[in-house]
Amino acid sequence: MKFGKPDAGFRARLYTIIFEAETRAGRLFDLSLIVAILLSITVVVLDSVQAVSANYGDVLGMLEWFFTLLFTLEYLARLYCVRRPLRYATSFFGVIDFLSVLPTYLALMMPGAHVLLDVRILRLLRIFRILKLTSYVEEYGMLNRALIASRRKILIFLSVVMMVVLLLGTVMYVVEGPGNGYTSIPTSVYWAITAITTVGFGDIVPKTDIGRAISSLMMLLGWGILAVPTGIISSELTAQHGRLRATTRTCHECLSEGHEYSAKFCKDCGAPLPPLESTAAR
Amino acid sequence: MKFGKPDAGFRARLYTIIFEAETRAGRLFDLSLIVAILLSITVVVLDSVQAVSANYGDVLGMLEWFFTLLFTLEYLARLYCVRRPLRYATSFFGVIDFLSVLPTYLALMMPGAHVLLDVRILRLLRIFRILKLTSYVEEYGMLNRALIASRRKILIFLSVVMMVVLLLGTVMYVVEGPGNGYTSIPTSVYWAITAITTVGFGDIVPKTDIGRAISSLMMLLGWGILAVPTGIISSELTAQHGRLRATTRTCHECLSEGHEYSAKFCKDCGAPLPPLESTAAR
Amino acid sequence: MKFGKPDAGFRARLYTIIFEAETRAGRLFDLSLIVAILLSITVVVLDSVQAVSANYGDVLGMLEWFFTLLFTLEYLARLYCVRRPLRYATSFFGVIDFLSVLPTYLALMMPGAHVLLDVRILRLLRIFRILKLTSYVEEYGMLNRALIASRRKILIFLSVVMMVVLLLGTVMYVVEGPGNGYTSIPTSVYWAITAITTVGFGDIVPKTDIGRAISSLMMLLGWGILAVPTGIISSELTAQHGRLRATTRTCHECLSEGHEYSAKFCKDCGAPLPPLESTAAR
Amino acid sequence: MKFGKPDAGFRARLYTIIFEAETRAGRLFDLSLIVAILLSITVVVLDSVQAVSANYGDVLGMLEWFFTLLFTLEYLARLYCVRRPLRYATSFFGVIDFLSVLPTYLALMMPGAHVLLDVRILRLLRIFRILKLTSYVEEYGMLNRALIASRRKILIFLSVVMMVVLLLGTVMYVVEGPGNGYTSIPTSVYWAITAITTVGFGDIVPKTDIGRAISSLMMLLGWGILAVPTGIISSELTAQHGRLRATTRTCHECLSEGHEYSAKFCKDCGAPLPPLESTAAR
Repeated sequence: MKFGKPDAGFRARLYTIIFEAETRAGRLFDLSLIVAILLSITVVVLDSVQAVSANYGDVLGMLEWFFTLLFTLEYLARLYCVRRPLRYATSFFGVIDFLSVLPTYLALMMPGAHVLLDVRILRLLRIFRILKLTSYVEEYGMLNRALIASRRKILIFLSVVMMVVLLLGTVMYVVEGPGNGYTSIPTSVYWAITAITTVGFGDIVPKTDIGRAISSLMMLLGWGILAVPTGIISSELTAQHGRLRATTRTCHECLSEGHEYSAKFCKDCGAPLPPLESTAAR
Repeated sequence: MKFGKPDAGFRARLYTIIFEAETRAGRLFDLSLIVAILLSITVVVLDSVQAVSANYGDVLGMLEWFFTLLFTLEYLARLYCVRRPLRYATSFFGVIDFLSVLPTYLALMMPGAHVLLDVRILRLLRIFRILKLTSYVEEYGMLNRALIASRRKILIFLSVVMMVVLLLGTVMYVVEGPGNGYTSIPTSVYWAITAITTVGFGDIVPKTDIGRAISSLMMLLGWGILAVPTGIISSELTAQHGRLRATTRTCHECLSEGHEYSAKFCKDCGAPLPPLESTAAR
Repeated sequence: MKFGKPDAGFRARLYTIIFEAETRAGRLFDLSLIVAILLSITVVVLDSVQAVSANYGDVLGMLEWFFTLLFTLEYLARLYCVRRPLRYATSFFGVIDFLSVLPTYLALMMPGAHVLLDVRILRLLRIFRILKLTSYVEEYGMLNRALIASRRKILIFLSVVMMVVLLLGTVMYVVEGPGNGYTSIPTSVYWAITAITTVGFGDIVPKTDIGRAISSLMMLLGWGILAVPTGIISSELTAQHGRLRATTRTCHECLSEGHEYSAKFCKDCGAPLPPLESTAAR
Repeated sequence: MKFGKPDAGFRARLYTIIFEAETRAGRLFDLSLIVAILLSITVVVLDSVQAVSANYGDVLGMLEWFFTLLFTLEYLARLYCVRRPLRYATSFFGVIDFLSVLPTYLALMMPGAHVLLDVRILRLLRIFRILKLTSYVEEYGMLNRALIASRRKILIFLSVVMMVVLLLGTVMYVVEGPGNGYTSIPTSVYWAITAITTVGFGDIVPKTDIGRAISSLMMLLGWGILAVPTGIISSELTAQHGRLRATTRTCHECLSEGHEYSAKFCKDCGAPLPPLESTAAR
């Protein structure tokens, strides 16, 4: 506590409201924050539509300043009540909070910057803090574990895709040439990504017969190869499922493992299993 | 029974025919209803094709009125024979049945409304009532359970996709600008969804080099990220399968079901399970 | 045998060569048939390319007649040596064989019909007869069983997709109207399929804001919903895998099931397992 | 050793540096090689962009010659220090190494050939040699085994897709004709691949009603059929997982591995297995 004693109680109360979600006031604060973020994003989005901006430009501009001042105030309050302001200011959410108010001030100097206010959407990631209390965290952890467990396979897959895209992009640059829209290797690689991910914008298309043959192969490859990462994640999640359901309960008599959550007796020796609490409590 | 006694027997018989599918008359009624729905949809669809409408417009208009009057009659019959008309009228199928006849009457005042008659296709959902008698329900229940079990993971996934689409849509609006077709943030978000879902209409395409680089990343992301929900559903259905397969063994003592193939004792009462042959032999 | 005795031996020998693949002559016949089919298809394909057709039209036309006469001869030989010619002529392969020679004769009357000769590609399905001797059949059977086991889930899925496509196609027809390319409900449904399958040709695109919002939803739906059939097939194949690996071997002592193919002793009671042949021989 | 004794020690040391990654010098060599490859590819890519090439063409040209000479030197060094130069020169990496320097020399005679230098990207496959020391190899092996195990199913799948694409491409050529862009069967097949892989460039689109109906079917087919290879790979990887998980238990008698969690006796020698705790405790 670097500040004077008098407002220490106020700071602690402010901290509980702003940073915690367990109390009633804290939850109310979080909910109004989410509503404010959604409203301010709606303002930015509407302001970018010309028909709306032409008629309600003044109101939207004022609302934008209102929300910016509100979030600036909130940012200062966070800085004020947190124990180590610098650590907060350099944390992920601290940076996001700062970037959420910056564009409006920047727009005073360079018009147009204020559309960057949409970075505020990232503030919604705080929602997960409220959900923390529910079972969303377990689901999220399962997804996360599966992705981490398969990160090496995914990396191998991505690097192979990158090589294919660069190689075939170059080949198409040679085969089709700038005359057919393949003006440079980066453009050809962009097209190759377009083809292999089955997006197919159609702004650049092969026109020679060889080019079409090569892109046919690429499309079939990109279409089929997607089965690989899908299979990786599927099998990893299936394994997580199996692990979750099976390995946590142990019979105290015969020490066999893998009993279901609903089991009351050991399926191997018939001895009563310890109640679920004692194992689920880990 | 709010109505007079005399027609109570008739109402009950009508109810059995219209609302139940177990009797012969009921099944016949359901089948003719399905045929009538399909025919009336065909009429609406054909009427929208200019070449057909120009030549057979009169016949199609008459057929449309015929089917509308038929379905109006059916709707009134349903209201008449059901015990609580209001509850039926506000139920899912009651609303659909009402909306199925409304557009033709509306078209008297505002021409063009009658194409909305296609909402009749939703009436086909009644088909599941006939299929109820077969094993389709079990399959449907399995799909449903898998979707419900993975609803939280899917929600997390969808909210992340939404954030990515809004953020990158805004970035593309800043990078490409209205000159290249990205006229507003909603339009940019529409384009971003086009790119991330690998649809790629090509009505709006990036033209600057930075824009192409960003959309390349988006396409790769959207292409690969699809593996996540697929993996979620796959693993959930695999788990359902496992659970399903486990349910064929029954304890002779407490009659509980769902023992694993490797179990030797009942997990619910601890009694020895009968050897696997006796159940696997079915 | 309705024909005279004299050529019964010749007919039987011909039958062995044409219809069976176990003998050396039969395999040779099948292989040359495959080569002839591939060559004749190449002729048809090349003939459709204007640059080639202009220069080598005469040669290609002669080759086409050569292959057609060859396949006509083969068809007659099949009819001659088979025991029940009518049953063969109305079987799947009999019809395909007949359709494979028809277009050339038809082209005498209506020019252009001869490109339909590509139906010959279906004759290649005979390849599976040669592969029958290898382990391809088991793999094919596994794929087949998985598809059959999930046919009901796939049917439910397809009917839901069809309803969505018809409904949203109609809505887009109302919202966008003929002025924006949605000229009729069938056209709108074609566009809706284009959007939901993530193909996105871009010949018809939404131009109004509401139309874009609706198609954004459709694209997200079509992109995500694909996870469902994939999950269905994945889990079904996983189950097939499990069944294949586990349930076929039984211990003669304790009657436990599910021993691995490589197991030599029962994993439950330690008694020696019967050799693999006796169970695998089914 | 065909060369003179004097430099045998030098050759062996060179071999260790160039071909092995276990020593410090070897790893350093590999890392600088990767950096050099990436830089030289960047040079080629930048050189293809007209805006960059116009301003820095001279520098990029010189850098290209520098890298080519460097890689030529490296290639000669590899030839020199390897025991059997011919076997190296005809191996996969030997050919890639040769092709990596060829285009620059070729460009002296035919301008434009130097963009083929991008084949250098394939040299990055050597990265896997460095990763060999980590656990990437196990992951790679798992992917590989799954792909090999499902190669037959994938082949069946691919040949069916090929038949469908050729057949429907021909049908579309007949239905739409050269007037609507379907100028030849190869072009129609290219379009059919475009539709079935859900790429949908939109350079060729059906314009007749029958053509649109057929392509709707194709799109739905291509969209849904992808579930099959995905399911194949998923189930195969899941099976691999199961096998992997089963390999943690070891029999103390015959030291065989891979017993199931539920096993009580060794499936290879029949000796009792140690209780699960002792292995699961790691």
